[in-house]
This record gives sequence, C-alpha cells and structure tokens, in this order.
Amino acid sequence: MERIISNQNARVKAWAKLATKKGRQENHTYLLDGLHLVEEAVKAGAKFHAIMATEKQMADYLPNVPHGVPAFEISEEVAKHIAGTNTPQGIFAEISLPEKTFDPSYVHDGAWLLLDKIQDPGNVGTLVRTADAAGFKGVVLGAGTADAFAPKVVRAMQGSQFHLEVLNGDLSEWVAALATNNLPVYGSQLNEKAKSYRDVEPSTQFGLIVGNEGQGMSAELAEKTTANLYIPIQGQAESLNVAIAGGILMFSLALGN
Amino acid sequence: MERIISNQNARVKAWAKLATKKGRQENHTYLLDGLHLVEEAVKAGAKFHAIMATEKQMADYLPNVPHGVPAFEISEEVAKHIAGTNTPQGIFAEISLPEKTFDPSYVHDGAWLLLDKIQDPGNVGTLVRTADAAGFKGVVLGAGTADAFAPKVVRAMQGSQFHLEVLNGDLSEWVAALATNNLPVYGSQLNEKAKSYRDVEPSTQFGLIVGNEGQGMSAELAEKTTANLYIPIQGQAESLNVAIAGGILMFSLALGN
Repeated sequence: MERIISNQNARVKAWAKLATKKGRQENHTYLLDGLHLVEEAVKAGAKFHAIMATEKQMADYLPNVPHGVPAFEISEEVAKHIAGTNTPQGIFAEISLPEKTFDPSYVHDGAWLLLDKIQDPGNVGTLVRTADAAGFKGVVLGAGTADAFAPKVVRAMQGSQFHLEVLNGDLSEWVAALATNNLPVYGSQLNEKAKSYRDVEPSTQFGLIVGNEGQGMSAELAEKTTANLYIPIQGQAESLNVAIAGGILMFSLALGN
Repeated sequence: MERIISNQNARVKAWAKLATKKGRQENHTYLLDGLHLVEEAVKAGAKFHAIMATEKQMADYLPNVPHGVPAFEISEEVAKHIAGTNTPQGIFAEISLPEKTFDPSYVHDGAWLLLDKIQDPGNVGTLVRTADAAGFKGVVLGAGTADAFAPKVVRAMQGSQFHLEVLNGDLSEWVAALATNNLPVYGSQLNEKAKSYRDVEPSTQFGLIVGNEGQGMSAELAEKTTANLYIPIQGQAESLNVAIAGGILMFSLALGN
C-alpha cells in the first residue's frame, strides 16, 4: 500500500481541494471524513475512488476496503490537512458525487423539502438529516443554498445523503410541478398572520419550503404556495433557528410522525 | 473616550480571557458580541462593565450607551482579537454573569428543560433559544454540559438568556424536586420501546431532559423519570440532532404550541 506523509504530495493536494466547490465540480467527487460515513457509503454502494487512513485506522479497516478500491496509508499530518480540522478520526474516502438527477415532475412521490438560500452549512446538513428521519423522499437545494457536499454539510448530514435524494434545483420549477400535480406546497414564515402549522393535517405527499436564516423565504416563492405556515412563539425569542423550525414542521406535517 | 489599538493592552487581554470559563469565573462577567445582543442586554437591564466598539460602530451607538457605562473605541484588530473570529460586527459589551440562583424547589412554576451532558456549544445555545420560543421558564445545565456563557453558546442563544432562566444545577436534585411536587419529568431516549412523544398531552408544568449527543441521557436519570419519550424515526437516519429532537419535544409538550 502506498504511504503518504507529505502535504505536498499530488494526491493530498487533490484531496484537500475537495473542500472547495470548484475542486468537487472538477473531480466529480467529494470527501467523507470518519468511519461512520465510510461505512454508510459502502452500504449504499457508493462509487469509491480511494480510501485513506492513518496507520492505526488502516490496520482496523483494511479487511473491509471494498475490492478494487485504492487504499492509502496517510500520516497524522496529512489526515489533519485533508480534514481541515485538528482532531480527525483518521479515516477518509473519496467518492463520486451523486449522478442521479430528478426532474421536478418526480415530485408526486413522497414529501420533499425545498431549501431557499439556507446559508449555514450546519443548518443545511441538519435539515437533510432531519428530512431523512422524518421519512422525506428528498431535499432540493435552491440557488444560494450552501453546497450539499461541502465538508461541514457532509459532517452534519451524518450519511443521510445515502438515504434520500439530495439535489440542486430551481425551486420555482419544483413549486410549479407540485401545483401541476395538485399537491400542496407549504411555505414557512415568521408572520403571525400566516396559518398555524398545527392546523394542517399530516399527509404523505407535499412540498415544504424553508428559507434563509435572516430574510426567510423569498416573497416570490411565498406567493406561489398553497399556504404559508407559522410556528407560534410563546416566549420572547424573536425566531427559531431554521433547522429547528424545519424539524418541527417536518415532524408535524409528515404522516406517521 | 479611551481608544485602544493594541492587543497587548491590559483591558484587551482581560476581555480576551472571557472566552475561557476560568476568565469568566474570575471576573464574574462575560462578553456579548454584536449589536443585537448589546441591545437585548440594555432592554433586560443587565449590569454593564464596558461597551467596546470600532470607530464606525461607536459613531452609531454612542448616543445609546447607558449612563455611567465606560465606552472604549477599539481598532478592527482588537475587535477580531476579542471576538475570536475574523468578521466581527465590531460592537461588544462586558456584562455581569447572572447572579440569581434558583433552588430546584422553584420547579413548580412553568416548564423546565434539563440538559444532561450536552457538549456542543451550538446545541446548548440553540436549545436555550428554542426553550425561550416554546415558552419555557428556564433551562438547567447539568454537570458536563457546555458552559452557558461560552462565546459559541452566547452566539447561538441570540439573547434568550435575558428572557428565561439559564442556570447550572444538579439534575438529580431537579428531578427529585419535580417528583416531590407531583409534576411529570420526561426523559428522551432513542429507544423504540420508550413512549411516543405523540402520546403525551401538552401541559404547562413539567421537566424535560435531553441528553448527550452520543450517549443520550444517563441511565441513572432515565430510571427516575415519569416516562421516557421517543421520537419515531421514519427514514433510515439513526438519530436526530439533539437540538432538533429537543425542539420537536418542547413544541409538542408545552401547552400553547
């Protein structure tokens, strides 16, 4: 097995570049950091380009490296460099970005979460993880939303990208497709005049839009929804974190929760 | 007004030390970063020790500096140093840590959130903010939970510490006090044999325990609860983020939401 100890190594430079959107788009791959994600990717049949691990981690994992996948032993220094953190677990994989694309007409199957300019990577990842737990079919990331395969998003998703569809899309097209299929699409607003989320019957097929941390969802989308929902605030907080609001709405709206 | 441009200035060193628990405990103060938090503190009648702002921010805010509070103009460099981030807004305050303490016997009034070893500062802050929005009376931070006045917690609370009680406490004592008052205390568990949160009638007086990100709540506390609640997971996610789970439970259990 090749052993890599220098951050100047060409492969290391290429892996480190996957922290940027440009790097991921050029390579059509992204990085998984940690054993849990690597195992989830194996289970999901993801296309592996490489598995990299420190000496200790590789000793444990080597028997599980999928057939034909190049494995590299890396130094602790290299592990920190490609992780971009000081305390990585020490096992990584480079896997293909998902190739499957969905036409908005696919929206007739299941519940879909639409993200309108959600900027914080932790919020995006947590929303995807929560949509998975709530049994949603997929998450559509509209323009201006943090990239689904950025390191902090991948960390917060905790492998949920292998369980439901995570894709980029034009939210106006998705909202239009929901309407064409006579399916409800709910917006979310910090507006006491909007409809309380408690007054919506749970169902299995719908769209839910959550919007930007500061500005909320765009006015243009809010005009096109079936209803815009409000979570009544009892205390003096001015708002809820968008991932919390999304979690409350998803678990309330999706039948079965 | 004193102008401070060096990170070696004694005041700057003292402010920077407030990023540590030791520094906060020695001074009995903590730092607010950003106009929104400074305004919330003024509104709440917090005890101010200093207001620090860059030239531009001070020009805007000076007329609002409370009477008798020392104001300092600081350089951009100093602002970054005491914020510990590269893009601070440029206005800060040093205020007293809350002095009010609550006996667990106070638990008969309202709903209380009990945090059992929640380690991530963002989760702690978001849980406090969400408890505020759900109309809770207070949040008790048990041993092993991130400090309530650490910079990342303060950022995520978004001023909710001025709206509800945020205090350290022995969770066993709080659980015992709830029992003594014949009030329910709900635990939360990732256990399908636990009771579904949907089966609990909303109420106004109760305790809710949420536990560590990896291990959940301690077995010792779980034995002492009225019931341990479970959020059914519909998809393939293994769990919910603790702040999301806490948010769903708080909004479901507290009457009025």
